[in-house]
Formats: sequence, C-alpha cells, structure tokens
Amino acid sequence: MVAAAAGPVRKRVVILGGGFGGINAVTGLGKLPVDVTLVDRRNHYLFQPLLYQVALAVLSPADIAQPIRALVRNHPNVDVLMDEAVGFDVAQRRVHLKTGVELEYDYLIVATGSTHSYFGKDEWAKLAPGLKTIEDATEIRRRVLLAFELAERQMMETGTHPALNFVIIGGGPTGVELAGAISDIARLYMSRDFRHIDPSMAKVLILEGGPNILAAYPVDLQQKAIEQLAELGVMVRTGAHVSDVQPGYVMVGEERIDAVVTLWAAGVQASPLGKMLGTETDKRGAVIVDGHLNPPGHPEIFICGDLAHVEQDGKQVPGVAQPAMQMGTYAAKRIGRLVAAGAGSDGSGKNEQFRYFDKGDMATIGRKAAVAKIEWPFKAHWSGFPAWMTWLVVHIFFLIGFRNRLAVFRQWAWTYLTFKDGARLITGSQELPGWNAQEEHTGVVTTKPLDMSSPKT
Amino acid sequence: MVAAAAGPVRKRVVILGGGFGGINAVTGLGKLPVDVTLVDRRNHYLFQPLLYQVALAVLSPADIAQPIRALVRNHPNVDVLMDEAVGFDVAQRRVHLKTGVELEYDYLIVATGSTHSYFGKDEWAKLAPGLKTIEDATEIRRRVLLAFELAERQMMETGTHPALNFVIIGGGPTGVELAGAISDIARLYMSRDFRHIDPSMAKVLILEGGPNILAAYPVDLQQKAIEQLAELGVMVRTGAHVSDVQPGYVMVGEERIDAVVTLWAAGVQASPLGKMLGTETDKRGAVIVDGHLNPPGHPEIFICGDLAHVEQDGKQVPGVAQPAMQMGTYAAKRIGRLVAAGAGSDGSGKNEQFRYFDKGDMATIGRKAAVAKIEWPFKAHWSGFPAWMTWLVVHIFFLIGFRNRLAVFRQWAWTYLTFKDGARLITGSQELPGWNAQEEHTGVVTTKPLDMSSPKT
Repeated sequence: MVAAAAGPVRKRVVILGGGFGGINAVTGLGKLPVDVTLVDRRNHYLFQPLLYQVALAVLSPADIAQPIRALVRNHPNVDVLMDEAVGFDVAQRRVHLKTGVELEYDYLIVATGSTHSYFGKDEWAKLAPGLKTIEDATEIRRRVLLAFELAERQMMETGTHPALNFVIIGGGPTGVELAGAISDIARLYMSRDFRHIDPSMAKVLILEGGPNILAAYPVDLQQKAIEQLAELGVMVRTGAHVSDVQPGYVMVGEERIDAVVTLWAAGVQASPLGKMLGTETDKRGAVIVDGHLNPPGHPEIFICGDLAHVEQDGKQVPGVAQPAMQMGTYAAKRIGRLVAAGAGSDGSGKNEQFRYFDKGDMATIGRKAAVAKIEWPFKAHWSGFPAWMTWLVVHIFFLIGFRNRLAVFRQWAWTYLTFKDGARLITGSQELPGWNAQEEHTGVVTTKPLDMSSPKT
Repeated sequence: MVAAAAGPVRKRVVILGGGFGGINAVTGLGKLPVDVTLVDRRNHYLFQPLLYQVALAVLSPADIAQPIRALVRNHPNVDVLMDEAVGFDVAQRRVHLKTGVELEYDYLIVATGSTHSYFGKDEWAKLAPGLKTIEDATEIRRRVLLAFELAERQMMETGTHPALNFVIIGGGPTGVELAGAISDIARLYMSRDFRHIDPSMAKVLILEGGPNILAAYPVDLQQKAIEQLAELGVMVRTGAHVSDVQPGYVMVGEERIDAVVTLWAAGVQASPLGKMLGTETDKRGAVIVDGHLNPPGHPEIFICGDLAHVEQDGKQVPGVAQPAMQMGTYAAKRIGRLVAAGAGSDGSGKNEQFRYFDKGDMATIGRKAAVAKIEWPFKAHWSGFPAWMTWLVVHIFFLIGFRNRLAVFRQWAWTYLTFKDGARLITGSQELPGWNAQEEHTGVVTTKPLDMSSPKT
C-alpha cells in the first residue's frame, strides 16, 4: 500500500477574477482535492447589485464588500494572489501575470467579467463615470452630492445657480436604479438640508438609445417602470442617441442637454482577456462557449459570468449575478468530476451540461418601488411595493457574510425609518467638471458681499 | 409698539471650520438671535480621535463622519457654505473666500485647526502620509494592507519578500495608536489570511525625536506605554531624528532603516489663516489669544481649538478635542452675552473668561490596553485594560449622533468578539512607493512558474 503522502500530484486550478463566478467556483473547489489559486487585482469581493446604493450614499463600501482572503479562509487548498492576468499560453497551459510571472494550470476558470464601453469614445469616461467598482461608486457619490453644495454656494453668492440636471445615459437596470436613487436623494434628503436652493427641483433624465428601457424585461414591466419613474419625477427619453458628452452638457443629435452630473450606464464590453484566449468571441468580446462552458477545443478552460456567451433555448443567458454564480458552481463541479475520472479523461463520460436556472430578475425604482419578473417558485410580473419588498428580501438573503447582511439590513431600516444617513460624504476633489458650463464665463470675479439675509426656512 | 418684523438687524456670525470648535460653537449659536454662516471646505464633521481606526480598517469612514448640514438641520438661523476662507479684511470685518466672494461678519470664529508639518520637507508628504482627513485614513489603510498583499505575491513568485517594516515617525498619541493598531492587524487578523508569508513577523517601529513618547503624559504612563507597546512587539526609539525619508526607507542620521510603509505622526502646524489675521502667533502658527479667546484688539474675533494658543496656569492648553469643544461652547456663549449687552458694548461688564476644564487624556495601545491620565471626577493614572475600557466608554459617549454611536459600538463588539472585519478594503492604486527598494533591482523580469506547492496551513 502506497503512503498517502506519496499520492498522485494534485491538479492545479487557476481562477481569474473574484466576482460572482470566481467566488462561487472557489467555494466549490475548496472542498476538492485540488490546489487552487485565485487571482484578482482587487483584494475584495464586491456585491455589485447594491453598488448603486454606495453611489447614492445609502450604504458604505464596507457594507457590500469583503476581503477575498476572508471568504476563502476555511479552504486551506486555496491561495489568493493579488495580481492581474495579462495573457495566456493555452498550449503550455500558462497564464501570464502583470508582474512578469507565469502561472501553470491544469484547469483554468476565467471569470473576469466586463467593463464599461464608451463605444470608442474613451474621453467620455472622465465626464460620465460608470458604476463597476467602489472607486466608481464614491466618485458618483462625490459628484452628485457636490452638485448640490456648489448650487447652494452659488445661490448664496450670486442669487442664481445652474439647473440641477442629472443625466443618465443608458436605461438598463443600473440606469434605472441610479435615476430612482438620485431622485430620492434630491426630494427626500437634500431638501431638508439646503436653505437657499430647492433640491426637489432637481431633474433626472434617462437617455436610452434603444426603443425601450429595461430591454430584458417584458413590455408590461417596462411600462410600469416608466410610470413609477414618472412618479419620482424621472424623465425617460428612448431612441435618444448621445452623440457627444462634454463638461456640463450632453448632445443628443443636434440638441444640447445641460447636465451638472452625467452618468454612464449604457454599454459594457467583456474583459479583454476573453479575446486573448484565441477562440471565437461575440461582438461584446464575450467568449462563445459550449454547454460545458468550455471554449471550443479547450475542455480544461471554463468561462464564467459576464465573459461567457452562453446560448440556452435560443436565447443568450444574461450577464447578471445569478447566471454568474451558477456558472461558477457548475465549473467547480465539472472540474471535480474530471479530476475524479482520472488523468487522460476528458470527462465526456459525465456529460451533464450547464443549464441556467432562472429565478427571475428585478430592478428597484427608488425606495418604495421595483419591477420583478419572477420565474421561480412561480411565474409572475410584479411591480410597485410588492416587487420592492421581494427585492429587499432576496438581496438581504444573497449578501454573502452574516455580518454584512445584518449591517445592511440595519442600515436600510434606519435610513427608511428616519431618513437619516451618515454615508453622505464628499471625499476627493471639490471640483466638478463643467460646472457653470451653462453660463457665459465673463472672466470677472464676483466680489460683492455674500447674501446674508435670513435664510428661508 | 414696533412690530417684531421691523426689529433690530440681527448680528452676523461667521464660523470658519466645522471641527470640534466650530460645531460646538454652532450648536450654542443655533439657539441665539443671530444669523450664522458656517464655512468648511469639507461637507462633513469628522470625529478625529477615531480616525486611526479607519486607517487600520476597523471602522468605515461613515462611522465617524457626519454631514455638517445634518448636524445643523434643526437650527434655521445657521447657513452652511462649502467653501474655503483664504484671507481677511479685519478692519472691514470681511472674510475672503476662495471663490472670490467676501463674507461680512459682526463676529468671527476661526476654528480651522492644524495640518501636518513636514518641517519644510514637503516632498516627504507623499512618502509618509499623516492622519488628518478621511482621504489620509483610506490612503494609510491602502498602504498597510497592500504591503501584506505585495509581500505574499512576491513570496509566491520568488520565494522571498522585503522585510515588513512599518515605521511611524512621531511618538505622540497618534503615533502610538497607529503603531498598536498595525501590530494588532498583523498579529491577529492578517496571520490567519496569508498562507505564504508570516504577517506576525511584521515589525512596527516608532521613531520619536524627543526624549520620550507621549510627551504630554506623566512619566509613569510613558513607561507603561512603552511596556504595553513592547508586549505588542512595537519597538520605540527616542531621540531618533529623521534626516531623510525616501521610497522604501528612512534615514536616522547615517543609519538607514528599511520601511515598506512609513507614516507621519510627528509635527503639526496651525492653519495658515492664523497668521493672516495679522496678530501675534506662536512658532507653530497658532494665534495668541487672551482669556476671551480674542486676539489682542479684536473683541469680535474668537479663535478656537488647535489654532488658539491659550495659556492657563502657566501651561499651554493642549491641542486636543476637549479644549476645542469647550472653546467653541465658550465663544458661542460669549457672543450671546455681547449681543444681549447691546450695540456698542464690548461686553467688558460680563468678564467671564475661558477656562479649560481638563477631564484627562487617553491614548489606546492596541485592542486591550491604553494609558489614561484622569483629572475628573477624580485624579488617577491608569494603564492597561481598565484604561482601555475607560477610553471605550468615553469615546462611545462623545461620538456625536445616536446612529454613529450605535454603529461604532456594534462594529467594535463584532470585531473584538469575532476578529472579523469588512472594512479591510484596498481602493485606489495598487502600487506602493519604494516597494522592493530594499533589494538590488536587476532589470530582469522573473518568468519562472509560480510556486504552486501546497501552501502552509
């Protein structure tokens, strides 16, 4: 009998990306007799569906993020490496890292997600930040809060201020959630804190290039969403193609729309690693994979989450949290089977394919409404408060980590009951690009004494 | 009888700075028949004594900060202006703001505090950040956490890493608190999360230029502090004059001390506004004031907090939170008396002077010890766990705002009981200045496969 210590060499699994796909894969692989290295350029896992609440000062970054090391602490076979993959040698089964080192693998899981696409206009990125990272969220928070502060200051100093137009480019779930949250902030919170301006006069506008907002939702819910947005004062323009983004305004064709803050929720493109695998990608840059989540000819490579182009029942599986989680779990299970089947096997004997189990999809609209397309445990289209309650319960439930779940729940309960909020911090620069672009700049510095008349109450 | 609406013009009070001095002044003035404008370049009030806990990932920024507008919401006579004072015309009683506007006042409270002093070596600021703002705290958090990540990465890739030396320049309360907290992080938290490096081997060194750390404390507590720091593995060198700060190391005379992270807790200088008043300042730039907190010849100007040089019983009142709060309260009360005494009065009939009521002073040393010089309700020198418990109760009690108080208490309880923590986020750049300065750079990029041997457990 051979001693256990001299057993076969353990298979090495490399996971790129610590998002929904990667973290669910690592959880599955943590129980298997393999050595795992999880590579992410960030040290934290982020619960992205709540990121817009950080951007709009309801939650703190730490409420929705956890150190990746803490998540894998109980899996001694998992290594975490804070680094970035920059290429592959799929023939040699190696990943090139940014530091110049190479990482060997027997199995590779690529789950590096997607990033904003400015349709080739990368210069728009600084003018219209999108929402993917914690830095993005605090930058959006800074801009939105700063706009009210600058307006109040200018009102006190000159008796006028630029129109508080918030323009959101893109009418998908992120755009709709940002719009509702900005409207909430302006009407419910800000209006109690400012004395000279009227924050409830702020206007929120969604510019959607396609014919409908929430394109992935059924028509009745799209209509409900427009109605619920209208109740919050959010205007929606569909078929509105943005031709230019400038400091202080946005162009839709020949029309100029003033904007003190412009946000980007329009396009995403897959992580550039997808194309580096050398197999076929779709127009977004996502890797076209088979039913095992493998690119053609590579049973040892799995693509999970946003980066995977998976067709199911003639439709593409959407790039949201649930499929990503399920793909990560599937990839781990599949690798476990291949390893168990032994060296040389391609696992074809165990042919169970990935299948997305769609429980539904939801988007909130402000602090009391949502739209929910429910697929499981029953089929339904909900909107308004019932949908919002469903959203609440589901998101609390899926938040990884007991502490975060409790903290977020308490924070929400407190905010909703008291309208109070300690996360409304402006950090970083105190400049806003294009502030006052609405007015003619005369070059004359105002020096008249500040309007110190008794403030309105 | 004259209608109330045609009553006398209300006096205008301008407060510069929304820290301990300014916020306590505004709370007092909020009840008086005056019009108040509070100017701060930040939108938030910061509970600075807990800032080191944000820097070391125990608390989130929002736990110890509150929007200034929220704090003054119930005082309709208070305006908040997010702007920055850049000068004065004391003859005309006007404040010049950065935006070019002027602000007229009848009474002025200047409470703009202090900032780091690098003793003329401003180029050190980027290499050795200090701890004054939320941005400072998240930058220190980033550097400390990143050092462990980079060491782990390098250990996996090359089998070695630079010594994890954390050097803190300055042995005052901030230096001692930072040192204890870094040692805690390394020994208690990090060592469970890293597989290839041993974070508990991290070294923390305090370099103090003077003969003693905690110079403002009695000798027995200084000695206790050194003992308690030694128990945490923190080394203290006194009489150590730093002659240079470079990426990756610090020079003390001719001796080079390697440092993956260098922090600055050495010198402070008063806000430059102090000197702009044109009256006498001390060598730190603080304004020398009389018993009414007025600079000579200006009964309408009050200096509060760090910016005030106040002598009491032959000693200078220290630049910490409590005197600042008491000065703010005093200034508001004094202005109330002057206003009540009527136009033309200099208030000399009501001659009550400011007197600092010293309840004591405390500094924590890690998560279980502290030194406390207690002056009220009894006199005592405490150290160790009793001092730490006292610190805990006092700081919870003085945290402004019920929500923050509860949130911080829960966060602390959770962290201390579970050693868990969701605030350990690295945001911003993933580069550390001077990383690897300890080694010869050869210019050769390592390309050998990563050490994928089974990690230590």
